Amino acid sequence: MSQTLTHKILARHLASGELKPGADITIAVDQILIEDATGTMAAMQFEMLGVDSIAVPLAVMYVDHNVLQIDDKNMQDHHYLRTFSARYGLRYSPAGHGISHYIHLEHFSRPGQVLVGADSHTSTAGALGMFALGAGGLEVAVAMAGYGFDFVCPAVVGVELTGTLGPNAEAKDVVLELLRRHGVRGGRGKVFEFYGEGLASLSVSARATICNMIIETGAATAVFPSDDQTGAWLRTHGREDQFVPLAADAGATYDDGERLDLSALVPLVALPHSPGNVRPVSELPRTEVVQVCVGSSVNSSYEDLATVAAILKGHTVHPAVQLTVTPGSRQILQTIIASGVYEDLMQAGARMLEPVCGPCVGIGQAPTEGTPSLRTFNRNFPGRSGTAEDAVYLCSPSTAAASALEGAIVDASTVSRGELRPAAPPHPEVHDLHIAGVLPLESRRTIEIERGSNLVPPPQPAPLPADLDARVLIAVGDDISTGDMAPDGAIAMSVWSNIAVCARFMFRRLDPGFHDRALEWGGGIIVGGENYGQGSSREHAALIPLYLGVRVVAAGSYARIHRRNLIAAGIVPLVLPAGAHSSTGQHSSTGQRWVIEGLADAVASGAPSVTARVDGDAELVLGLDFSPAERAVLAAGGLLAQVRTGGRTMLAGDAVVQDDAAGVTPGSAR
Amino acid sequence: MSQTLTHKILARHLASGELKPGADITIAVDQILIEDATGTMAAMQFEMLGVDSIAVPLAVMYVDHNVLQIDDKNMQDHHYLRTFSARYGLRYSPAGHGISHYIHLEHFSRPGQVLVGADSHTSTAGALGMFALGAGGLEVAVAMAGYGFDFVCPAVVGVELTGTLGPNAEAKDVVLELLRRHGVRGGRGKVFEFYGEGLASLSVSARATICNMIIETGAATAVFPSDDQTGAWLRTHGREDQFVPLAADAGATYDDGERLDLSALVPLVALPHSPGNVRPVSELPRTEVVQVCVGSSVNSSYEDLATVAAILKGHTVHPAVQLTVTPGSRQILQTIIASGVYEDLMQAGARMLEPVCGPCVGIGQAPTEGTPSLRTFNRNFPGRSGTAEDAVYLCSPSTAAASALEGAIVDASTVSRGELRPAAPPHPEVHDLHIAGVLPLESRRTIEIERGSNLVPPPQPAPLPADLDARVLIAVGDDISTGDMAPDGAIAMSVWSNIAVCARFMFRRLDPGFHDRALEWGGGIIVGGENYGQGSSREHAALIPLYLGVRVVAAGSYARIHRRNLIAAGIVPLVLPAGAHSSTGQHSSTGQRWVIEGLADAVASGAPSVTARVDGDAELVLGLDFSPAERAVLAAGGLLAQVRTGGRTMLAGDAVVQDDAAGVTPGSAR
Repeated sequence: MSQTLTHKILARHLASGELKPGADITIAVDQILIEDATGTMAAMQFEMLGVDSIAVPLAVMYVDHNVLQIDDKNMQDHHYLRTFSARYGLRYSPAGHGISHYIHLEHFSRPGQVLVGADSHTSTAGALGMFALGAGGLEVAVAMAGYGFDFVCPAVVGVELTGTLGPNAEAKDVVLELLRRHGVRGGRGKVFEFYGEGLASLSVSARATICNMIIETGAATAVFPSDDQTGAWLRTHGREDQFVPLAADAGATYDDGERLDLSALVPLVALPHSPGNVRPVSELPRTEVVQVCVGSSVNSSYEDLATVAAILKGHTVHPAVQLTVTPGSRQILQTIIASGVYEDLMQAGARMLEPVCGPCVGIGQAPTEGTPSLRTFNRNFPGRSGTAEDAVYLCSPSTAAASALEGAIVDASTVSRGELRPAAPPHPEVHDLHIAGVLPLESRRTIEIERGSNLVPPPQPAPLPADLDARVLIAVGDDISTGDMAPDGAIAMSVWSNIAVCARFMFRRLDPGFHDRALEWGGGIIVGGENYGQGSSREHAALIPLYLGVRVVAAGSYARIHRRNLIAAGIVPLVLPAGAHSSTGQHSSTGQRWVIEGLADAVASGAPSVTARVDGDAELVLGLDFSPAERAVLAAGGLLAQVRTGGRTMLAGDAVVQDDAAGVTPGSAR
Repeated sequence: MSQTLTHKILARHLASGELKPGADITIAVDQILIEDATGTMAAMQFEMLGVDSIAVPLAVMYVDHNVLQIDDKNMQDHHYLRTFSARYGLRYSPAGHGISHYIHLEHFSRPGQVLVGADSHTSTAGALGMFALGAGGLEVAVAMAGYGFDFVCPAVVGVELTGTLGPNAEAKDVVLELLRRHGVRGGRGKVFEFYGEGLASLSVSARATICNMIIETGAATAVFPSDDQTGAWLRTHGREDQFVPLAADAGATYDDGERLDLSALVPLVALPHSPGNVRPVSELPRTEVVQVCVGSSVNSSYEDLATVAAILKGHTVHPAVQLTVTPGSRQILQTIIASGVYEDLMQAGARMLEPVCGPCVGIGQAPTEGTPSLRTFNRNFPGRSGTAEDAVYLCSPSTAAASALEGAIVDASTVSRGELRPAAPPHPEVHDLHIAGVLPLESRRTIEIERGSNLVPPPQPAPLPADLDARVLIAVGDDISTGDMAPDGAIAMSVWSNIAVCARFMFRRLDPGFHDRALEWGGGIIVGGENYGQGSSREHAALIPLYLGVRVVAAGSYARIHRRNLIAAGIVPLVLPAGAHSSTGQHSSTGQRWVIEGLADAVASGAPSVTARVDGDAELVLGLDFSPAERAVLAAGGLLAQVRTGGRTMLAGDAVVQDDAAGVTPGSAR
């Protein structure tokens, strides 16, 4: 049968299971990506696994989130992560070196390999023909320890690209168009695989933009073929030896399909407060902005910044607007300096920030309340900017640049555009010298790991209770993101290494009394709407409820990563029947007492549902929609317990190499 | 009589009084400098003066402190300051354009003129032959409104410089040597005026370093002659027309004098927690560092950064060290890029920060507790870095660079040094386009000032009580800085526009119960040691006590600016007799009840002291050490009340031009 590229890569990494949508599969992992924000929990849990070293060919720890250092805590995290990495064999990219996803593309991503990352935007590496998946920290730690990566096989959607982009449309508009079509839920359970003649004109940077933000549709990831653009990228980065051509077979059968004509795209913008709330810029009423931010893990490439510079050159940013520009990495910084792009941006009045995540996660540059801030970022969930009552719009670099001059949201058709600066130097001079290497195991064993007082290992779940008797702590609406559970921002994120302190921020924007009520009640139940837990992979959104005594969440439906994080933390994500929740969370069930008899048995036995008696009276049937592997994790009392009690098997180093013909060799990292 | 340069400048600006140490004088002001941290209070108080426009030739508002924007508040401040400046006729330098003192040197400082600034390091402009003085926000606002600037005439210390600096000693070591000699109190009541053959080898950047940090001795300011170096600087910055040669008369009589042989200087370092705690680097035990920070309002010049680059080029920063580099301004950023310095720094692994104050005031880059952080900054008061239990060392750029490579504090004699990059381009290309200009008054009157909810006008004092009956709220030791009253750091400084919120941070490091106790007791008395209120000019350190109901402080002695701020806020700084306070604050008098009968009368009448009855028993004689002008301010109920009730006279625009022969023309700003 003609295979999709996704299935080709997965087949060659398959350790167990069947490549059928919805089936449990385990795959071998070539590379691991971790960043500091999710990384301290991932690392502390890795240590609890009791292994002596990482057991994957390559793992890289990137410090790119908590780097403002508004107090003592961030730097404690850095000391811990640096010494942890040195001890266990991860490469370590220090604060200021760049954003994980850009550095990973530059130095490590390889066509045909599998990358698992403790960051939802790990999908970015799909641009280079990888199968790259974001996951929670514990699942990543388990994969890094050599157990492979367990997940539910997604459906593959073929997206045929035709035409080429017009002068004012960009890769960002491609993914905004997909978000316009699918919203923030339509991609769930899917991988988007791109093919067609439109591919040829899309550079790896452009593909990275699409792969990065595809997950805002709820998708698992996106995959691009490895073609001439891929080869050109690898040559530019001194890695031509790692090029292999890869594509779906001719006539491959996709589970679903769609077409996208690049020539027909217009500049789009996502309005507050959802990446799925997409409209053409031309249809917006005049919207004055006080801030424009370019960069983040999307749209921080050389091309993106050169596009902005071409529009700004010779002009000055509107005096009421603060424009910030964040290069994706130190290497990109070097290329924009060498080519004159930096100078153009600076002369126009841009604030040039460090190559770190920064404003994208509200770590600095928080805008004024209620005042439009236009950003080339990937998310505009409420409060993510660091300002609770924010109003963030998402757009492409050229729209951002034109708007920075105008002081209001306009697309680049309204401004004259200078010539693009020449392409980045063919071989950027910034090397990977700053990414610490890996010592031999013998030397590593003597390394002392620095553990500051800010670093507190996460709580561990007790076994699932036989029966549950608990009250509803809160009822929230649809599309609540993990950012409402473990909020973004310099202040809230500085405590991500200590779940008890993190917990004070949970649901604070929605209900400031949540934390104290949960402590007072000794736990309880969280009720959610559709797509509960969308967005970031931060497992804090599961570890905080665990700490607060929550063992059951009941929602209309779930976002992929958060659902898996709940399961890994030993919390049961139950499915509410239609009509039993409200899209706004208004018809609150807070305070109800739910009694679920036989919960643990039902989960373990494969029962399709359990019944809750609500306030001793009404009955509510709750779905137990789990794969067998998921039930096993829950029955074991969470993933860490499952691994520690021998419930998971380590993959043999070469067990899963099915076929090297296509150059897809797991375990052959650089 | 042969005049000092200080007296020449002051004489030509003298509106009233006599140039005699200790005498009240009023001088005309040519230029005003304000920055955002102290600026919101200064601006709100300026508005209370009820004038229609600034009444000085030039005033510039610089946004350089509160620019991290960890939440909504910083940007509210920016909107306010931008529209305030536009309305009242100040030029406005936005966030990211640079540090006030560097930009002021580049664009505005003029030999022979008088600058008053709401920032203690305003003294930096003495490098260009100005008389430049830091002051509290209200005093600056009053000067800006046209009332001239009132102060107590300082003594002039002549410092004869001989020799030239050796290979590893720098201007920073000159001022550290003066701090070694005088400590943080020895300069009080003095201006340091430099002369001698050693001057010729000191560039304006080097002089700026000395003038910036001279105030750490307690001095009012420092003044350098206007000579060939001054002319070269003005030419480089396209302002050769503003050059006038200026120097003390031959044989000028100084109030005091000393000599400093530049050739004899060795690399010095100030140990925690005082800029006066100076030792030669060579005498330090091995001190490993986790952080090295270059830049701030001192040592952020082109020369400073080129020196660092020459040492780092071709090497990589020690893996356990985070090195940050902050250019002083966007113009310096442009020159380090054009000359290759930026590239050298970046390639070595430096984190290149925005040209803002940043880590110097704990706004970002807070180090880990108790772990040495080495910085080229000007202050290492405890907690100023943003970390309460910090351990900050101060040094020169070359010592910082060598230490960043070594991972421990060493001077540059231990490392090989590359060639210095060529001097900065003769005419840096960054212009002042980003510093908003001044509209005609008619247009300005229509401008609406944006006032966010974070901006709350400060409290105003009631008239001084006839008798005082209050309890001692706290007793602190010697050299307590204003940073312990209104702390530095991104979190604490974000609320500097709202005194009631600021108040929660007062003395928090020393006594977390202070704020609540003060509220509970409805006010009280603060007891201090020697040099109470050293450091920053932040008048929050006076406005918070006012808000908390404090009308009397009693200390062994005071730092200049804070003492004036207390008086301006209507708080009486009483002088304790010797032996009545402890250097550590240990023998606390907290809780004592002090009754001072006839307080208001004693202040107004010129009485030299008052007597406090302590706990109804012992008597304590407290000095009223005030000039007549200071008594008048206190008797009026503070400076704002004095001005608003007609107790101060506006200076006529040309009233004070005594003599233009030396090119010293007040009122002729660019």
